[in-house]
Amino acid sequence: MAPSFVTNGGVAAVKTTPFAGRLASVYSEVQTSRIDHALPVPSVLRSPFKIVDGPASSAAGNPDEIAKLFPNLFGQPSSMLVPNGVDSIGSDQKLKIGVVLSGGQAPGGHNVICGIFDYLQERAPGSTLYGFRGGPAGVMKGKYVELTADYIYPYRNQGGFDMICSGRDKIETPEQFKQAEETAAKLDLDGLVVIGGDDSNTNACLLAENFRSKNLKTRVIGCPKTIDGDLKCKEVPTSFGFDTACKIYAEMIGNVMIDARSTGKYYHFVRLMGRAASHITLECALQTHPNITIIGEEVAAMKLTLKNVTDYMVDVICKRAELGYNYGVILIPEGLIDFIPEVQQLIAELNEILAHDVVDENGLWKEKLTDQSLKLFEFLPQAIQEQLMLERDPHGNVQVAKIETEKMLIQMVETELEKREQEGSYKANFKGQSHFFGYEGRCGLPTNFDASYCYALGYGAGAFLHGGKTGLISSVGNLCAPVEEWTVGGTALTSMMDVERRHGKFKPVIKKAMVELDGAPFKKFASLREEWAIKNCYISPGPIQFVGPASNAVNHTLLLELGAQA
Amino acid sequence: MAPSFVTNGGVAAVKTTPFAGRLASVYSEVQTSRIDHALPVPSVLRSPFKIVDGPASSAAGNPDEIAKLFPNLFGQPSSMLVPNGVDSIGSDQKLKIGVVLSGGQAPGGHNVICGIFDYLQERAPGSTLYGFRGGPAGVMKGKYVELTADYIYPYRNQGGFDMICSGRDKIETPEQFKQAEETAAKLDLDGLVVIGGDDSNTNACLLAENFRSKNLKTRVIGCPKTIDGDLKCKEVPTSFGFDTACKIYAEMIGNVMIDARSTGKYYHFVRLMGRAASHITLECALQTHPNITIIGEEVAAMKLTLKNVTDYMVDVICKRAELGYNYGVILIPEGLIDFIPEVQQLIAELNEILAHDVVDENGLWKEKLTDQSLKLFEFLPQAIQEQLMLERDPHGNVQVAKIETEKMLIQMVETELEKREQEGSYKANFKGQSHFFGYEGRCGLPTNFDASYCYALGYGAGAFLHGGKTGLISSVGNLCAPVEEWTVGGTALTSMMDVERRHGKFKPVIKKAMVELDGAPFKKFASLREEWAIKNCYISPGPIQFVGPASNAVNHTLLLELGAQA
Repeated sequence: MAPSFVTNGGVAAVKTTPFAGRLASVYSEVQTSRIDHALPVPSVLRSPFKIVDGPASSAAGNPDEIAKLFPNLFGQPSSMLVPNGVDSIGSDQKLKIGVVLSGGQAPGGHNVICGIFDYLQERAPGSTLYGFRGGPAGVMKGKYVELTADYIYPYRNQGGFDMICSGRDKIETPEQFKQAEETAAKLDLDGLVVIGGDDSNTNACLLAENFRSKNLKTRVIGCPKTIDGDLKCKEVPTSFGFDTACKIYAEMIGNVMIDARSTGKYYHFVRLMGRAASHITLECALQTHPNITIIGEEVAAMKLTLKNVTDYMVDVICKRAELGYNYGVILIPEGLIDFIPEVQQLIAELNEILAHDVVDENGLWKEKLTDQSLKLFEFLPQAIQEQLMLERDPHGNVQVAKIETEKMLIQMVETELEKREQEGSYKANFKGQSHFFGYEGRCGLPTNFDASYCYALGYGAGAFLHGGKTGLISSVGNLCAPVEEWTVGGTALTSMMDVERRHGKFKPVIKKAMVELDGAPFKKFASLREEWAIKNCYISPGPIQFVGPASNAVNHTLLLELGAQA
Repeated sequence: MAPSFVTNGGVAAVKTTPFAGRLASVYSEVQTSRIDHALPVPSVLRSPFKIVDGPASSAAGNPDEIAKLFPNLFGQPSSMLVPNGVDSIGSDQKLKIGVVLSGGQAPGGHNVICGIFDYLQERAPGSTLYGFRGGPAGVMKGKYVELTADYIYPYRNQGGFDMICSGRDKIETPEQFKQAEETAAKLDLDGLVVIGGDDSNTNACLLAENFRSKNLKTRVIGCPKTIDGDLKCKEVPTSFGFDTACKIYAEMIGNVMIDARSTGKYYHFVRLMGRAASHITLECALQTHPNITIIGEEVAAMKLTLKNVTDYMVDVICKRAELGYNYGVILIPEGLIDFIPEVQQLIAELNEILAHDVVDENGLWKEKLTDQSLKLFEFLPQAIQEQLMLERDPHGNVQVAKIETEKMLIQMVETELEKREQEGSYKANFKGQSHFFGYEGRCGLPTNFDASYCYALGYGAGAFLHGGKTGLISSVGNLCAPVEEWTVGGTALTSMMDVERRHGKFKPVIKKAMVELDGAPFKKFASLREEWAIKNCYISPGPIQFVGPASNAVNHTLLLELGAQA
């Protein structure tokens, strides 16, 4: 039975049982309103259905190698849930299913678990769902909790991963597979749902292959999770969490834009989470129309230097100054410097020098740098030079992640503007303000989109496990249509794979989906950015709404990629 | 006539006239939905009303001095709008009214202007409203725009101050009064509404006194604005913008809390805007229940040192580690170090040394510091030492505002934890993450509360000017009741004043309302913080909602101060 709620001066408190962490908390009125929210779900999930298999599949690249790496799974078809007169999935057997959250948080994870749970309740009654605690390590160490209706109730439609928590361990070595086998045997698991990003889903497929090769009954289904939005393909149009995270960042960016226009004197440099791909930055740009947006993939493709990026910013700032605008908003992807080849080269050289040479105060050590790297080093602001020299990880490497790119760029822009002022081509007074939006977006209340999307992913995962499927990733499609018309399928994980050569061996990988420079989202951005740079076309999306027409908007990236927006 | 809207794939575009800045923008769906939102307003504003004066007033302190400084205004009564059979305010005259925004942005400013405008349209038809551009400088330089229905329409219920922008100039010297008189004469102004904080309202009252003393017809009414929440008294229960800003920050803090609990490995140090008073930090704590909250006023009252503050944090962190919690959320007011006497002392000494002595590399200059300051300096992390020595403002003073207190505290906590680890009283692995939430909150879409509150403030200001009143601050009361039951009044600005002696002269001031340690909000916080420190009682308020029951909650500070919450 669900716990009862007591409302108390605008703040609703949930009655507590000593067991679940969340139940000890008080809930805000908005959180409370979401728990019992009647979630729209694809209509196929509301009727009896059957699983229909598609044609045999191949791989994203190097099918021969993938076939060798996955002899049991390669070529298996993707599947769809299709309405049927009667439910024809599985037998009347009671299932034992495990679920694990892997990697960084993304809004909606709890709803995937609720979807699995509800599937089991509705279509395989008497089944048991185990939640592995603390990520893949929980699978290997056999740390789990049985997820009951009461246990999961307070997490419905809520952000965070705290129902069972997550972790960054991986199940990939033979020994680790062994541990996973032992846990699966101990719990008599029929299936395991792995909720994670590209790496976690690759490992889920290896685990599925491993179980199958040993004739073990445990099946494995993956679910696409990451706010970064870089796990996607034709059948898996988006990863969950991206929609919510981008809307949270866009709310903040929109507020800062109105502030910039009202104050008229600051340039706000906003660094946005997303180390590998720049999808978040691109989506936020499409939602808010900033004056300057840097997309890492474009910087890499055009082999831009840090000086090029700085000059581009300074050119726009000077043009705006001529028009009387001495303010603006600039978006920068977290991973920007990873995209700049010269920076990578400098860091590699510094790592060598720091490992093997004495760094003398007189700077003689700099002679060991190549000309290009020395030039870049001297071009960097002093604070960044120090950061590069001082902050190292346990392996002695420079910690790129610690560099506050937005502050570095402010300093570089300042220096360049001083030069232009001396040349007479800039006269205004530049003031930079730095921001980093990251942790705020990973655990927000999921949008209506992410809430429904995740629930369908989980419900589908339950169905495919029940139907005996393994090595699939839950894939929900037709996402630009109303939720009721969404399709629910499972895509063969091997069909999304290619190989990479590492240490002389082929390793299977699901390639990160980077921003495509000829894709619709980037092309739309590119066609508008010059106007955004000079005119002030700011849009302030405002806070995410859960009720009303504004509550059901889907992000631009998805709409554009699916051709539902021009 | 209002411009027509075109809806376009989830994003609504407003048709443009070339004149107003906002009209050139596209609006988000949420922004659009707010423009035509039917705002609840106090019922007194929906009927004919009259002005009823209260008894003669005095001053907040030193009434004799205030009487000397305001010979024409001192002692005048506060007033209320009261329903009446017929409207009995003013004659049929057409008014010419000016409005100016002064100081930092606060959500709701546009609605004050809309309230004034609608008053004039409805009760003094044919009147003219001028918006002075860029703050008080616009009054002095005569830079203004005529505010028409079309002009203000797109700003209804919208955040920001960009309709006419703001500025930080002040009208306070005889010469500046002269300029203001010239503008008032040129525009034949019957009245001026000054929307600002404590300083701006003090200056508004001086301007009112000046106009009255010269028998000029221009009246002046103030409106209480500041997200900091430090302009308030019995009659003016809150300043506008505080409610929205706190809810925006609390949304982010709540998200970070769920992230902390999900990840289980970070302490998030969140610095919150609000340099003078800690109201924002206290309100956010009441909304979200963080593990540690530092209130500047308490630090000052208890004469705490930086070491005391650090030790308090470290004690909680160690206790939590024993319970197995190696994560948490810590709120810090922006102005923390301004509250610590020893830091002020150190900075004063450094300013002296930097102005008059050579800072030698061997550190001999440190001998000039007093023992206490030297000890504190050595206690500070190196990066902060450098910041103190390097960053100075144009007058050569250390820039306290640039010190990232949250990062400083992370480093100090790290150092102290290392010590405790060596002593054997701490074993876990501490990781700090820093955040600053500030600019994001100043220009958000106003909450339902701020939208209605501001509209009533403006509408009332229009009525009092029409009724010939001057030197009042618009004051809307009974704020814990439904909006319809709110009262609308005008409080004599002189009644809120005290004097301060500066350069041998008495200057009138509206004293900043600091956090009262025996006030209900602080006492509630103090009674709960030990539980919050050890248990995890996090509340995640979620994004501000504009529709539904959660959309009408009033902030805790106001509810507690008005006795509407226990």
